[in-house]
Amino acid sequence: MTPAEHAQLALLLEVAGTPKPGNVDRDRDFPNLRFEHFLTGAVGSGGGLRAAEADTTVGEAFERSVSGMSRQSGGNTQFGALCLLVPLVKASTSGGCSPESVTNVVESTTVEDAEGFYRAFDHVNVFVGDPPEGADEFDVRRGSDAIPAIRDAELTLFDVMEMGADEDGIAREWTNEFERTFEAGKRIVELDGSLSGRGARVYLELLAHEPDTLVAKKHGRKVAESVRVRAQEALQEARHGDSELVHAFSESLVEDGINPGTTADIVAGGLFVALERGQRP
Amino acid sequence: MTPAEHAQLALLLEVAGTPKPGNVDRDRDFPNLRFEHFLTGAVGSGGGLRAAEADTTVGEAFERSVSGMSRQSGGNTQFGALCLLVPLVKASTSGGCSPESVTNVVESTTVEDAEGFYRAFDHVNVFVGDPPEGADEFDVRRGSDAIPAIRDAELTLFDVMEMGADEDGIAREWTNEFERTFEAGKRIVELDGSLSGRGARVYLELLAHEPDTLVAKKHGRKVAESVRVRAQEALQEARHGDSELVHAFSESLVEDGINPGTTADIVAGGLFVALERGQRP
Repeated sequence: MTPAEHAQLALLLEVAGTPKPGNVDRDRDFPNLRFEHFLTGAVGSGGGLRAAEADTTVGEAFERSVSGMSRQSGGNTQFGALCLLVPLVKASTSGGCSPESVTNVVESTTVEDAEGFYRAFDHVNVFVGDPPEGADEFDVRRGSDAIPAIRDAELTLFDVMEMGADEDGIAREWTNEFERTFEAGKRIVELDGSLSGRGARVYLELLAHEPDTLVAKKHGRKVAESVRVRAQEALQEARHGDSELVHAFSESLVEDGINPGTTADIVAGGLFVALERGQRP
Repeated sequence: MTPAEHAQLALLLEVAGTPKPGNVDRDRDFPNLRFEHFLTGAVGSGGGLRAAEADTTVGEAFERSVSGMSRQSGGNTQFGALCLLVPLVKASTSGGCSPESVTNVVESTTVEDAEGFYRAFDHVNVFVGDPPEGADEFDVRRGSDAIPAIRDAELTLFDVMEMGADEDGIAREWTNEFERTFEAGKRIVELDGSLSGRGARVYLELLAHEPDTLVAKKHGRKVAESVRVRAQEALQEARHGDSELVHAFSESLVEDGINPGTTADIVAGGLFVALERGQRP
């Protein structure tokens, strides 16, 4: 399989993994965001991922993949995951699937890449927090309206991600050599069982290790930290073969409308890394 | 979305539909054939489906899609479905997604298309029954070894399908204007709810209406007819809002190792038709 196929498969394996407390998975639909919206998003993003594999720039390939992903009625399904997968696909087709190679890809992004990234926000409603102080004109929620300001300030896409890295776990991957993504990939390779099942386990491990930034942005840091602690407890029980607490944790997150989406995105990146390293369903 | 994307999505929605008694679905894995093998098959077949959309012939596009589908360890996941989807994609990109148009596509197949079809059997182990009497040299299980005989007899792919139409429900679609496929598509459009859920319902309706030919080939006609009758009973209960019998039926098929795969393939074709007619998750 090509890197673009691995990326599409990573999106599918991610959503198929269960239980993934707080998120749509093989056993969980939300009323307006269902499993099949994620399947459709994965199919739709294929063209953009193949463009990343060919000669298209990161920004344009990302915009195309998001535009394709959005052709379903569930809304934002895989924006964050694609934000990791597009540079990973590019890295894999050039220098290889490694932290160094993907760092090289993201550090080489241009102002045009930043423009593509902002245009991607025109296609779908993405939950993001307020921009850093004094950076209102670069607010990603403005979508393509922010492009003149981006051009004036000559911000590359890497610069844009640097601005968001304090608050956003995906932006932080960009500025931090995709550390958690590669760590997730390594863990998935180490574990046994179905790939989607391993993805679900690593989701819980990541969630237990660091507060999810999407949860922090939506519900505050305290809630995100409390989710982390509860994930840690559920993980400990699960390690002893008892999945009851994981399921109770899952129910409670759903009840409270808490979805650790950034952690799921990093799992998708990790699944891609594992597939590139020869893992195969 | 393009026809090739609709075909890929149809494969995913088909396997995501549940309950689909006897087959892998969103809630059912078999020990060596799991949900994620179908996800991988759907991703892998994308290249062949896109080739069908472009200028590649039916036989070559089919072989490519099957070769791509086979890059997972579960074995045959979607051979029969692709046998319907490849000509449907070709029809949709030329004369439209209609019985007339797809009939035109399959009736125009050549000896070269038949060669591609036979080569496809080299990529994956497909369960098929014995060939008709006196047609041993055209046995599809011989794979590409049968190609010289096919060439000598100047058999087109349509001719090959005609030979199998008595025993095989997919071949019969080819020679019968894809009647059940379009009927399934119409029903999916009529029903309400998620597309994968509608697919599962239509699976049960089709199964209740005609014996599954894969079951007949593997277990005999009597078993296939008994499965049909039990599907009819389960469907009647389900129509009255009681799904208990469907689940019991499902468990009993799994216990007996009976999987009505041809019926699932036709549902995949029906989902494609529904997507082409504007249905969207």
